[in-house]
Amino acid sequence: MQKLVVVKIGSGIIDNEDFLEKTLQDFANIEVQKIMVHGGGSLATFYSKKLGLTPQLKDGRRITDAGTLKVTQMVYAGLLNKNIVTKLQYLNCNAIGLSGADANCLLADKRPKTNIDYGFVGDIKHVNSTIFSKLLALGLTPVLCSLTHDGSNQLLNTNADTIAAEVGSALTRYFNIDIYYLFENKGVLNNIADENSLIKKISKTTYLNLLASKKISEGMLPKLHTAFSALDRGVKNVYIAAYDSLNSIFEGNQTGTLLTLK
Amino acid sequence: MQKLVVVKIGSGIIDNEDFLEKTLQDFANIEVQKIMVHGGGSLATFYSKKLGLTPQLKDGRRITDAGTLKVTQMVYAGLLNKNIVTKLQYLNCNAIGLSGADANCLLADKRPKTNIDYGFVGDIKHVNSTIFSKLLALGLTPVLCSLTHDGSNQLLNTNADTIAAEVGSALTRYFNIDIYYLFENKGVLNNIADENSLIKKISKTTYLNLLASKKISEGMLPKLHTAFSALDRGVKNVYIAAYDSLNSIFEGNQTGTLLTLK
Repeated sequence: MQKLVVVKIGSGIIDNEDFLEKTLQDFANIEVQKIMVHGGGSLATFYSKKLGLTPQLKDGRRITDAGTLKVTQMVYAGLLNKNIVTKLQYLNCNAIGLSGADANCLLADKRPKTNIDYGFVGDIKHVNSTIFSKLLALGLTPVLCSLTHDGSNQLLNTNADTIAAEVGSALTRYFNIDIYYLFENKGVLNNIADENSLIKKISKTTYLNLLASKKISEGMLPKLHTAFSALDRGVKNVYIAAYDSLNSIFEGNQTGTLLTLK
Repeated sequence: MQKLVVVKIGSGIIDNEDFLEKTLQDFANIEVQKIMVHGGGSLATFYSKKLGLTPQLKDGRRITDAGTLKVTQMVYAGLLNKNIVTKLQYLNCNAIGLSGADANCLLADKRPKTNIDYGFVGDIKHVNSTIFSKLLALGLTPVLCSLTHDGSNQLLNTNADTIAAEVGSALTRYFNIDIYYLFENKGVLNNIADENSLIKKISKTTYLNLLASKKISEGMLPKLHTAFSALDRGVKNVYIAAYDSLNSIFEGNQTGTLLTLK
């Protein structure tokens, strides 16, 4: 099977023009099939405030009321997605921007109300892997923003890490998949205050030990959980690495954290 | 050759929830290949003002400074395009939203500065008809918002009527093309104050006579010009008609204005 990489870029990259530039250049240069996934960074918060809304987050997830959903549409699918696609086109990468509604590529269920009502937030129930494979076969590079839909005329805000993991897992039917979670730090750190405490490799066993020892930072936990769920479903490797590490990893000089089952 | 219709929906439809609903329902039901083109309606002005910008129009064209371009990205490509795509998906039409940067489908040149500087406004120089035909062959229905790009990392605001005409003309390579300009009125009127003065058919000769007699309203002139330029390049028919006339025209009961060469 052919190789395909899913590259998710974090808020710390989107919010930094130089980081974004470097990441997109490296992404454009990768000579395998590829998909990019992005969220909204701090711009969604910026525009929410400018439009008179009060942004609310709960456990890193945005509470998405109707007004906030409009802002995520505008910022994720409009401003950022088109900026990224336009830049990638300039870099000779034939990008095509997609929300989950486009070509019906990502179907989700609205998260049920429990003690928290997340609002218009969706949990993915189906990745249309066929349409992804067909778009890729046309030489296109999908650039996914973190919006899905429910098939009943409702867009839903969906975590970008999760989208990367779900799309990667679904595409194991057609490709050997690696997922890259790129962000502003070096990778998973043993001590979040010490950049030199990078953990180079985390196997499933190491992961379970780290979980038990409660050594992993709160912010990193959901990302590791999502990554191992993808590995359990056939994704080969997951990297959690710095925005500028794509080239070096491709050249065999791993710089971030590699997550594998074994 | 197969038939394909390009349907451009005007501001008066986008700004009216009921009109938009009816138009999308009828569009979803058309059983031929199809492409939708939309602009931004009054929402771009609304959000420009909300974000502290002062909207400027010149001859019906928006003056697009850097801040305004961001708003058009947000409103056209984010808010409206995704609302339309999500609704069409619900109506069992496999829509895919595109700006001109996506899949490099619409290349434009920034309009040169003359006595007026339109800012980031683009005039189309190339329609990537191949990618349109390939996306259509996948069963997808392109939904184009009125943004193009220059291939050098610049998005450009481009008139939606023109996009419909350019895309329609370029696709005459592959399809028998009809273009529909749908809006809130019945069609081209002899007397703009009298809804019953509908002109049922305008041939090229009639058009030139109407031009000479200066009978056509200012707002309608660029639309007719654009339409006849498309007809000159092989488009079969252009209809200028009401938002709710798509079904009746398809059933052979023409209700708006038909434009043809002869």
